[in-house]
Amino acid sequence: MKQYYSYEAFRVDTKKLIDQSKAFKPESIVAIARGGLTLAHCMAEGLDIRDLQSIRTELYDKERQREEITLYGTCVFENNRRVLIVDDIADSGKTLQTVVSYLKKAFPNVEFMSATLFYKKTSLYEPDFWINEASEWIEFFWEKDF
Amino acid sequence: MKQYYSYEAFRVDTKKLIDQSKAFKPESIVAIARGGLTLAHCMAEGLDIRDLQSIRTELYDKERQREEITLYGTCVFENNRRVLIVDDIADSGKTLQTVVSYLKKAFPNVEFMSATLFYKKTSLYEPDFWINEASEWIEFFWEKDF
Repeated sequence: MKQYYSYEAFRVDTKKLIDQSKAFKPESIVAIARGGLTLAHCMAEGLDIRDLQSIRTELYDKERQREEITLYGTCVFENNRRVLIVDDIADSGKTLQTVVSYLKKAFPNVEFMSATLFYKKTSLYEPDFWINEASEWIEFFWEKDF
Repeated sequence: MKQYYSYEAFRVDTKKLIDQSKAFKPESIVAIARGGLTLAHCMAEGLDIRDLQSIRTELYDKERQREEITLYGTCVFENNRRVLIVDDIADSGKTLQTVVSYLKKAFPNVEFMSATLFYKKTSLYEPDFWINEASEWIEFFWEKDF
């Protein structure tokens, strides 16, 4: 079963996620591309954060025929000390777990927290902020409407 | 006068922009953050492009009290040879002009084209693909709804 997730639902949920994340007072946002980009953009507007960077991940390495996550993109935080990592969903949780542990290791003086719209109870990583528990396959409006 | 630009209008226009851009057969997308991020995300989904990177610009350097554009973020295109640069609007055109000329210089073997939703006739740079001529101040849904 697929569940269509509309812009109207996204608007309501993203406002809640912005409210939740405010306590952390993030200075930068890292979007996980592609899935987290629209959410990160709208959260950055709502939180008035200008520094929005992105990291891209590939879950499968087709050449080597084994499952691994490759990260593309570098981050620079200058004097910013609180960074919010944003993705659409923590499904298996592998992507978020990989990005969070990579960034924490690369920037030991920066505090990282994470936010997603959806979280699956079977995910091996639970974001600090999330709105909906996902049971079905979510079809986001950016995947369906274009 | 401000003109509110809704998700519904964005959806229609972005589909047109995807259709226009198809002839170029882009292999990568560079989003200009923050304004171009949601558009770039939706175009990447519609065009089935996985490689979406972002560059951030700051128009004013407050410390030095003079108008200049600073670019943040680096791009890596590996074997991709056609790259679409995406922003929401070509207003003064300075941001796009700076990003396009920077990327062309840095990657002389890559072909770049650009796409925006809005274009002002007074812009000093005209994107290769654009949908609407802007006369008023556009208030995008991501700026207003969150």
